[in-house]
Amino acid sequence: MKHKSLYVHGYDTKENIRLQDQASTLVELLHSDTSYPANSRVLEAGCGVGAQTVTLAKNSPHARITSVDISEASVAEAKGKVEAAGFANVSFQQADIFHLPFKPGSFDHVFVCFVLEHLSKPVEALLLLKELISPGGTITVIEGDHGSANFHPDSEAAHRAIQCQVELQRRAGGNANIGRELYPLLCSAGYSPVRVSPRMVYADSSRPELVDGFTKKTFTAMIEGVRQSAILAGLTDASLFDQGVRDLYRTAEGDGVFCYTFFKAVGEKK
Amino acid sequence: MKHKSLYVHGYDTKENIRLQDQASTLVELLHSDTSYPANSRVLEAGCGVGAQTVTLAKNSPHARITSVDISEASVAEAKGKVEAAGFANVSFQQADIFHLPFKPGSFDHVFVCFVLEHLSKPVEALLLLKELISPGGTITVIEGDHGSANFHPDSEAAHRAIQCQVELQRRAGGNANIGRELYPLLCSAGYSPVRVSPRMVYADSSRPELVDGFTKKTFTAMIEGVRQSAILAGLTDASLFDQGVRDLYRTAEGDGVFCYTFFKAVGEKK
Repeated sequence: MKHKSLYVHGYDTKENIRLQDQASTLVELLHSDTSYPANSRVLEAGCGVGAQTVTLAKNSPHARITSVDISEASVAEAKGKVEAAGFANVSFQQADIFHLPFKPGSFDHVFVCFVLEHLSKPVEALLLLKELISPGGTITVIEGDHGSANFHPDSEAAHRAIQCQVELQRRAGGNANIGRELYPLLCSAGYSPVRVSPRMVYADSSRPELVDGFTKKTFTAMIEGVRQSAILAGLTDASLFDQGVRDLYRTAEGDGVFCYTFFKAVGEKK
Repeated sequence: MKHKSLYVHGYDTKENIRLQDQASTLVELLHSDTSYPANSRVLEAGCGVGAQTVTLAKNSPHARITSVDISEASVAEAKGKVEAAGFANVSFQQADIFHLPFKPGSFDHVFVCFVLEHLSKPVEALLLLKELISPGGTITVIEGDHGSANFHPDSEAAHRAIQCQVELQRRAGGNANIGRELYPLLCSAGYSPVRVSPRMVYADSSRPELVDGFTKKTFTAMIEGVRQSAILAGLTDASLFDQGVRDLYRTAEGDGVFCYTFFKAVGEKK
């Protein structure tokens, strides 16, 4: 826990459901173009409760995937989830991303999703992961960026509620606006070339599954989840925060629009 | 000029070059999926100096395009540009979008690009245009959204400089953040179904043409262009504004990233 920052979102059940909802509604947008060859050795660093691991296992059925997380409880849950889905191509292990128990060049590819946002030293993590990749291999990194949240009707209170989450994550050593920085971060860690593609979730009422699955149950639910912490930290008061959350839910109505951008980067190791 | 708001960008030469640069670097992103059938009657409402008209003519070589603009000078320039490019499928006419001299059902398709952002009554314009479309036809609308501008390194001064442009446009009756609203606007005007797709310009140093053509010569040049007006309007002072512009140019350096989203909507007339 020397470098790993506090995980702002928390490990409770509601959070697990949210992460799961997120993965199932975003899965195509974020993961459909990630598939590893048969027999390639893939490390998923920071698998959490396995929200992405099932997709990874499904899209690369003949790859040999190793998924690790710093939390023993999360690893157990991820393992159960992947087994329940009937996949046998993933092995699990508890480990700290800053002290991974693998020899240099142990993997052909590394996959990191929603992890760097929680680290106070993301470049250091990327450097350590690079050591584990054999020459010619790749790292794939996916992160969100709360600064990309845009919506109609616009609302100052909603932006301030989002800013509470950004500030809490910053105080815990993380960066909720890290998505836009993936290119310089991977370049700093010596990956080359680095290719970034933005993935915008655009939700209006012609796409009801996204409105429900993303605007309401993923993004707004996540902001709602920091209410207590934000008030206790003195970042807001209950009435202002609640107005912001109401205004976020308002963007899920018939004439509302919600936009959020994830960034996906692929970097090569020479 | 009853409804048409003041055109914030202005009609000077530098602006024309900027619009032209914008169209040539963004052309594929914004226009590659717009092509009208042979003999279809297409109205381009608000062609300006023809930045988009050349692309429209090129992508729909056998359509019969009519391009109008409220400014006689712009129409003349657009005409010259299209003729110089060797296209003979466009006729030009000076006309106000709120008083178009065409009979109901005169067109199969309408194309509107970077126009609604300048109108104080965009739904009214969309309703009038709908009258001109024959049943089964479509309207295509493309607009930017300054609220989508995100960059690294982040900068409060840069956001404030952008906000000057947004506020000037608002005071002139327009809306620089209109992109995200295309879905409700077209729905309000009775188009159905309406389909919106966001088009993000993502520029990091692996894409030098976009950094030069968009980050510097399109977006930052546009913000720089309102310096005098913003200072005269009391929205900022020279030192803060100049810092913001410097910070925007900073995002065009090797480790910088700049993101901006355009929205493209297609609505059908029943």
